[in-house]
Amino acid sequence: MGFKSDIEIAQECTMAPVTEIAAKAGIEEKYLEQYGKYKAKIDYNLLKESDKKDGKLVLVTAINPTPAGEGKTTTTVGLADGLQKIGKNVMVALREPSLGPVFGVKGGAAGGGYAQVVPMEDINLHFTGDFHAIGAANNLLAAMLDNHIYQGNALNIDPRRITWRRCVDMNDRQLRFVVDGLGGRTNGMPREDGYDITVASEIMAVLCLASDITDLKARLSRVIVGYTYDQKPVTAGDLNAQGAMTALLKDALKPNLVQTLEHVPAIVHGGPFANIAHGCNSVIATKMAMKLGDYAITEAGFGADLGAEKFLDIKCRMAGLRPSAVVVVATVRALKHHGGVAKADLNNENLEALEKGLPNLLQHVDNMKNVYKLPCVVAINAFPTDTKAELDLVEAKCRELGVNVALSEVWAKGGEGGVKLAEEVVRLCEEPNDFSFSYELDGSIEEKLDTIVKRVYHGKGVVLTAAAKKQAKQLEELGYGDCPICMAKTQYSFSDDQKLLGAPKDFEVTVRNLKISAGAGFIVALTGEIMTMPGLPKVPAAEKIDVDESGKITGLF
Amino acid sequence: MGFKSDIEIAQECTMAPVTEIAAKAGIEEKYLEQYGKYKAKIDYNLLKESDKKDGKLVLVTAINPTPAGEGKTTTTVGLADGLQKIGKNVMVALREPSLGPVFGVKGGAAGGGYAQVVPMEDINLHFTGDFHAIGAANNLLAAMLDNHIYQGNALNIDPRRITWRRCVDMNDRQLRFVVDGLGGRTNGMPREDGYDITVASEIMAVLCLASDITDLKARLSRVIVGYTYDQKPVTAGDLNAQGAMTALLKDALKPNLVQTLEHVPAIVHGGPFANIAHGCNSVIATKMAMKLGDYAITEAGFGADLGAEKFLDIKCRMAGLRPSAVVVVATVRALKHHGGVAKADLNNENLEALEKGLPNLLQHVDNMKNVYKLPCVVAINAFPTDTKAELDLVEAKCRELGVNVALSEVWAKGGEGGVKLAEEVVRLCEEPNDFSFSYELDGSIEEKLDTIVKRVYHGKGVVLTAAAKKQAKQLEELGYGDCPICMAKTQYSFSDDQKLLGAPKDFEVTVRNLKISAGAGFIVALTGEIMTMPGLPKVPAAEKIDVDESGKITGLF
Repeated sequence: MGFKSDIEIAQECTMAPVTEIAAKAGIEEKYLEQYGKYKAKIDYNLLKESDKKDGKLVLVTAINPTPAGEGKTTTTVGLADGLQKIGKNVMVALREPSLGPVFGVKGGAAGGGYAQVVPMEDINLHFTGDFHAIGAANNLLAAMLDNHIYQGNALNIDPRRITWRRCVDMNDRQLRFVVDGLGGRTNGMPREDGYDITVASEIMAVLCLASDITDLKARLSRVIVGYTYDQKPVTAGDLNAQGAMTALLKDALKPNLVQTLEHVPAIVHGGPFANIAHGCNSVIATKMAMKLGDYAITEAGFGADLGAEKFLDIKCRMAGLRPSAVVVVATVRALKHHGGVAKADLNNENLEALEKGLPNLLQHVDNMKNVYKLPCVVAINAFPTDTKAELDLVEAKCRELGVNVALSEVWAKGGEGGVKLAEEVVRLCEEPNDFSFSYELDGSIEEKLDTIVKRVYHGKGVVLTAAAKKQAKQLEELGYGDCPICMAKTQYSFSDDQKLLGAPKDFEVTVRNLKISAGAGFIVALTGEIMTMPGLPKVPAAEKIDVDESGKITGLF
Repeated sequence: MGFKSDIEIAQECTMAPVTEIAAKAGIEEKYLEQYGKYKAKIDYNLLKESDKKDGKLVLVTAINPTPAGEGKTTTTVGLADGLQKIGKNVMVALREPSLGPVFGVKGGAAGGGYAQVVPMEDINLHFTGDFHAIGAANNLLAAMLDNHIYQGNALNIDPRRITWRRCVDMNDRQLRFVVDGLGGRTNGMPREDGYDITVASEIMAVLCLASDITDLKARLSRVIVGYTYDQKPVTAGDLNAQGAMTALLKDALKPNLVQTLEHVPAIVHGGPFANIAHGCNSVIATKMAMKLGDYAITEAGFGADLGAEKFLDIKCRMAGLRPSAVVVVATVRALKHHGGVAKADLNNENLEALEKGLPNLLQHVDNMKNVYKLPCVVAINAFPTDTKAELDLVEAKCRELGVNVALSEVWAKGGEGGVKLAEEVVRLCEEPNDFSFSYELDGSIEEKLDTIVKRVYHGKGVVLTAAAKKQAKQLEELGYGDCPICMAKTQYSFSDDQKLLGAPKDFEVTVRNLKISAGAGFIVALTGEIMTMPGLPKVPAAEKIDVDESGKITGLF
């Protein structure tokens, strides 16, 4: 039996005009800016001017994933559809996809099966132009920086210490390491340079953490682009770039409204990397979803050790958000993977391995309940290859240990398949909670890192290389000691070793590099090499994408 | 006395909702895709499905300009406003501005004074995202090309003969000459590379010449990206890139609807360079303006020797367009400049120099009437510094020589200042015309070049360097001999020497380089170095741009 592809399912959907979706969400016409018939931007002034009480915020996160991903976005969308099925006023808030994966390996990123946001082609291709605007702001800053050096370098910037890279929303390995400014005196100043994919630009993180346009401009002006010959930081504000950058971003700051296949209003806005940045949709999008819905369902990148940790410790802290419940997505496949099953065998029933993989899930649940003190439910995201015995086992084991659990069949059945999970989420949202952060901001950088490793990862503690120790000291001297930490670590393990599956113990996490993202307002702790510019595979997905004469797109997954 | 800045005038305008503008233009709702409240895209299917008779096409061009420009866009907009004043159903079709000049020296490009298109901030900043889409398509092709080489180079592409460059919509001299693919085996293949500004990308020319989405894809697939080790051309089609590129461009192909300050429907779409490309708005935009209006007013870049020549010989020929009249814009300042007055003295009355500069204008008018056989009128674009004696002299001299002439005061007075010109244009459009091209396609490349130099520039003939002669032979062997020619020449003179002002005689034009733009379908003839990536000035305009907390932009000119 063949399954329909995501794009086939998406294109079969009769979408409601975005004006209807807006009306359903209670957005007055004056706050709506249509982008075509099925997309719109929402004026952020609605946030200030509405007197509706904020809805409940629900975070969807996951166990440590396999490389295939565990369906967080699908579950997030399906949970929202399920809440609608049981009569709730719900909004979903997701990240925007990058063009890189669309043309590379992964394909689109707007949910899957019968739990998607639409129009999926548009959402995956340019959408409302936010990422291009971010790229333009990033590259304007780069051009102004190099122009400053070319025009006499009044700020005394050391071309060898420039940290600002150009960006493009594309998988283009050829641009990772370049030398630019070649061609002689009139063509710039030769220096080493390189490109990141746009989602890895600090501007993306800045946009996603900004509370309004004034905060956006202030953050942009604090962005560090490099250091002087005497090692002082140089900022975008020093180059007078923040005004023009804000002008480029003024529309990108407005959250985008679309819909799920079942016409639940969906906000899709922002998409920072989940390693060197915090991996969540924008603060404004999340607040807008809470302002409009009685339930706002959102997600965070990677597993809960990275995604939920940063969502809670960085985003919620900076934005003053208080979640009501957490959903931890698990799949039978990923649990078997954590139980030691090889990739080729993941589709075969294996109850023993499944049980052996459970501690990974349980430790994430434990973190949510006992570190962050939030009500939590496990959503088992059903795959067609799962057997009934496997699904029953996970459910039984969770119940045995007092863990809330619900089977989610949203990929195959849409909202109907999310009703059980929705009912559980509604119940949890009524529970009182004592939301806490995993660490406080007032310790030293090393202390904060150590707390994350011990409390969230359950390791022995952090180890800083000599270089990282020196960087920590410098950052504290520069006044950045009180910033939250943004961990850049493998998403496949609680540890910094992607091969340590399950719930490893007795490991140390080594931080090799500490960098300040002064605009975003966090310190990035790198535990290894992080790829900020992906490459295309041997046969890029782009080769299969086509458009017919009516403009209908095929080959997008 | 101070004048209001363009942005101040633009922001004082109470715009009509774009739905009202669309209704006024006779665009049914099903063809309209709103982008915010004051911008929209028009579905190109309207072109096929409407049964309205096409309106008259009027081209606005100019004498050889001074570096300040002679106000073609301003006159184009004001003429449309003037036609509305006298009760005509009119549409205007313009090019989209690039972000490069906005942040560099020139500022915005949406008309000036009381003859502008609005919302000017949006039109100048991202607009509906077309240029970013073009950049993404351009850079996807580049990434697929380098990835092909990295993954084994089955097509045998010579990395030293790659002609495809990356692009960004920014003035960034640092990127003119780069070496990329550095960093070792996993990071690409080191080679020389470089960036153009997006408007100089062949994709821009392709989009602007495409008649529909099928033609767009066919043109993209013909784009040449480089040559093999045995010197065979390699195309985007060879890389299977045309489908994904078309998918990226499917919305960019739809023309954008905005309005003039006086609420005349305006289409602003596409903006190819006027040197290495043909410098006009898109074919689809022009056809749409003719389909909707009884009069469609459009413009072409630079002076008439370049802009009108390419508009008529390339765009009208490819698209089967037939203009009804031509407006040649002249200013008192530019005429004095052609009469030998130095820049510093251009604001002082000088009747003698003015008369001495007239032959430049008259030769352009003569070309329109006697080469292209089109009715023609001179529009004197009045500046605040012009004296009455000067304005009177130009008008009297034109009349004396039987040249139609009208004073245009649209910069200061809007449509009211364009009524005289509008009346003259209406009259000319009723005249029969015998529109002809300046050259036919069936001669050799050198013959066509020679014809342009003799008939349009009034020089002695063309000279090809040895390299250009060899290139002409190669292009003819490859089957490109029948393509029209796209001249890349200084815009300041009829000749290839920017210092030869007025109507020079006895000069030869030297073509140094011939390149095929196989997707656009023309041969670019370069007469000197053409800068395809501008730089920022000492104090970029970007430093003065700002946004307040309500999102209102200041400092954009």
